[in-house]
Amino acid sequence: MECGALEAKFRELKARLAEVDDLRAAASVLGWDQQTYMPPGGAEGRSRQMATLSRLAHEKFTDPAVGHLLDDLRPYEESLPYDSDEAALIRVARRDYLKLTRVPASLVAEVIGHQGLSYQTWTEARPANDFARVRPLLEKTLDYSRQFSSFFPDFEHIADPLIDLHDEGMTVATVRPLFDALRPELVSLVEAIAGQPPVDLSPVYGHFPQDRQLAFGLEIIGDYGFDFNRGRQDLTHHPFMTKFSLGDVRITTRVREDDLTDALFSTLHEAGHAMYEQGIHPDLEGTLLADGASSAVHESQSRLWENLVGRSRPFWEHYYPRLQALFPEQLGAVSLDAFYRAVNNVRRSLIRTDADEVTYNLHVMLRFDLEVALLEGKLEVRHLPEAWNDRYRSDLGIVPPDDRDGVLQDVHWFSGLIGGMFQGYTLGNILSAQFFEAATTAHPEILTEIGQGRFSTLHGWLKENLYRHGRKFTTHELVQRVTGGPISVEPYLRYLKTKYGELYGVEV
Amino acid sequence: MECGALEAKFRELKARLAEVDDLRAAASVLGWDQQTYMPPGGAEGRSRQMATLSRLAHEKFTDPAVGHLLDDLRPYEESLPYDSDEAALIRVARRDYLKLTRVPASLVAEVIGHQGLSYQTWTEARPANDFARVRPLLEKTLDYSRQFSSFFPDFEHIADPLIDLHDEGMTVATVRPLFDALRPELVSLVEAIAGQPPVDLSPVYGHFPQDRQLAFGLEIIGDYGFDFNRGRQDLTHHPFMTKFSLGDVRITTRVREDDLTDALFSTLHEAGHAMYEQGIHPDLEGTLLADGASSAVHESQSRLWENLVGRSRPFWEHYYPRLQALFPEQLGAVSLDAFYRAVNNVRRSLIRTDADEVTYNLHVMLRFDLEVALLEGKLEVRHLPEAWNDRYRSDLGIVPPDDRDGVLQDVHWFSGLIGGMFQGYTLGNILSAQFFEAATTAHPEILTEIGQGRFSTLHGWLKENLYRHGRKFTTHELVQRVTGGPISVEPYLRYLKTKYGELYGVEV
Repeated sequence: MECGALEAKFRELKARLAEVDDLRAAASVLGWDQQTYMPPGGAEGRSRQMATLSRLAHEKFTDPAVGHLLDDLRPYEESLPYDSDEAALIRVARRDYLKLTRVPASLVAEVIGHQGLSYQTWTEARPANDFARVRPLLEKTLDYSRQFSSFFPDFEHIADPLIDLHDEGMTVATVRPLFDALRPELVSLVEAIAGQPPVDLSPVYGHFPQDRQLAFGLEIIGDYGFDFNRGRQDLTHHPFMTKFSLGDVRITTRVREDDLTDALFSTLHEAGHAMYEQGIHPDLEGTLLADGASSAVHESQSRLWENLVGRSRPFWEHYYPRLQALFPEQLGAVSLDAFYRAVNNVRRSLIRTDADEVTYNLHVMLRFDLEVALLEGKLEVRHLPEAWNDRYRSDLGIVPPDDRDGVLQDVHWFSGLIGGMFQGYTLGNILSAQFFEAATTAHPEILTEIGQGRFSTLHGWLKENLYRHGRKFTTHELVQRVTGGPISVEPYLRYLKTKYGELYGVEV
Repeated sequence: MECGALEAKFRELKARLAEVDDLRAAASVLGWDQQTYMPPGGAEGRSRQMATLSRLAHEKFTDPAVGHLLDDLRPYEESLPYDSDEAALIRVARRDYLKLTRVPASLVAEVIGHQGLSYQTWTEARPANDFARVRPLLEKTLDYSRQFSSFFPDFEHIADPLIDLHDEGMTVATVRPLFDALRPELVSLVEAIAGQPPVDLSPVYGHFPQDRQLAFGLEIIGDYGFDFNRGRQDLTHHPFMTKFSLGDVRITTRVREDDLTDALFSTLHEAGHAMYEQGIHPDLEGTLLADGASSAVHESQSRLWENLVGRSRPFWEHYYPRLQALFPEQLGAVSLDAFYRAVNNVRRSLIRTDADEVTYNLHVMLRFDLEVALLEGKLEVRHLPEAWNDRYRSDLGIVPPDDRDGVLQDVHWFSGLIGGMFQGYTLGNILSAQFFEAATTAHPEILTEIGQGRFSTLHGWLKENLYRHGRKFTTHELVQRVTGGPISVEPYLRYLKTKYGELYGVEV
């Protein structure tokens, strides 16, 4: 085929994908509205509208004409540099196309119906502490998850196609060694900390009026580099980030007036996700590449800005006086040291989403292992609560008093497939330290700047090395490009051991 | 065809129209967001997304399969009562289908492109008072409007297809006699009022904090019967009503803290539109019938709740003490009578949207006449400013000092076609009085109830007689059903003459 003809085909592919992107963006706007401003009466119509948009986006993407274009464009792709926008778009679109077309549409529809029922039942079974009620549904979910994997026989492990949905290129074989290296170290660290006197949390509890909490969060993320011309923050029940275009990336938060940390750190977290999306190169707009590389890389940015920056000592040296000025009655007499300890408190607890930096990954890794065991057939759903509790005992030293705060606590398995849902959280933490170390190695002044409330060197480095690429590279490729080596838990362990070793006066 | 086969075809038609409805609703959500919360950076992506949704909705509706279904369903429609939901849906869908398919898609695309340019140019030409700059564009708009009409040769007058787009069933032949009967009476009434001493407007000017203004408006529309479970109010630059489903009907307003009337009456106005939509029978959800009957009937409801109720003496007898309690410093010493006069001030002015109840229709009717004259070829665009000023002189007794506040003031001709844009405003006023008279004749207690802040009898009557029908009937059909006769200006003239005769002590 001639070059001109190939370029015409590429333009056609882009136009078709842009249409899919518009439909997905519209569905995202409807989803955002549903969670922020929609009156209760709008629920029924809204779910109908979102279903129509999703169905149309799916139909447009899985149109056989797209498959033919992707086939025809193979020589074009091969003629271009691997890291060119064009080759990357064809490569990523082909992967997505395969993922969407391999599984029969009838099965997809069946699974979506099942997930709706499963989610609905879970919302009732969790408060009722009734695992037996969701058990048959979860068994069916597991069955669907295994069926799903069976359509991708080219993967090595049954969990791999599911992991690949969220973290392209990651597999059980690449994740497990990382987790196996991390877990024992964390268990020891948590044990050592548990032997120390508990931290005084009273500085962060009290009465903190909503408007001042929100203003403080907005001030910080403005300093971070969140672009309010291309984004905004609204209130919701569960904080999230969503993107409608590179010019419109929104975050949400919730405020607990009796707890200073909830809105603040969720704001820093979601802003990290948002700055990643805002930093994608404008040339990728309207294509599949205008998105994060993976769950793990996305999470690395939310955790970097939330924890490595936002819970660091230099950060609070700069911002604590401002916070005290906002809440003089509550914090006027609290020292920086006491406050810094309170926002970095480590405590064995039952609920993943409430967990601190050190224990958090133990919650995540046990879920990953349970998912894999279920998929492998080594664990049956009926033994899941027991297996859950056993792992809490061995990894965290505590046992849930009931399934409500045990195996029923996360929505993931009751609203999606089993597999691939959790590894991204811990991989994200691992990567956050790896990227941060690379940034501070290249620019040691970053640490000083954080202590001055200045973030442009760090933000600039992240944009240049990570954000602008969008989805052009996989997690592995990005880490290799940025650090010159593979994914490694060492920087993360160094970070945790140094910070918490000092904080708690323990040696690990 | 057998009955079962026809019913299957009807279900298919409904499913196809529901998909169109979902796409249009999604576009409306995106439009609402654009005007309420969207950050500036979102503009580019948003217009792309809205264009895609509109194009897909258009493609889905104008699919030849829809035309075949409508043809095949003719016997089904004829077998059912005229006022059945099914017959009405087929009838209305056929009308819309013809309107959308008669005009070639290439012309539609050309016109949309032209309208974008025309609107953009107008936004610059109006502040610059530069009619010459938009003149060639307006000439082209007129040409497009005439071309549009030429695809509907079955209408009598060249303006009729354009009027029919907004007010189905209305024509120059039905509108003109109404306007000819109304205009001289209004000119006399305005002249008589102009001879009286001016009203003191100081009660409504001052400083009125935004939150209390908004709370007062929300309290009143809650009393009216606006359902906050199925709607909400947000802030925008230009107030509007929009509907995403019968369970989600939203209004917007803006607040001027130096003018008490702006937010208040726009809120009552938009709430009238919204209560109409909220009152449509749930059986019509997801179909083309879940909409207002016409621009005129829609406007009749906004004006009824804004003016016939919200500017009436009994209304303020009830609400004025509450308003005084909200703004004791500003209104504590202002009598009910002085306040009532201030919110019903009549004044010859240049700007339609600022006009009072009495002069408003003079602004509208002259625009209607100019549109018709342009379409008929009796007036050339180059003579439009002169013709505009002549009519202001003869109808309102004042002449715009420049085109900015003259012929350039309305967005309509610069963002759409010429024709059909204005008659609905005055028809709406005419109908508001006709419907209100019918309601109070059936339930004379309505007038007493308004004085007690109770609106359920009125609201219930309107729901039962108007709202629930949605788009099943045309304006003519509705008026005939509700009043037993044709559209008439008499109730409206009676209303204005009685109210303003008393207020200004004039006899007309």
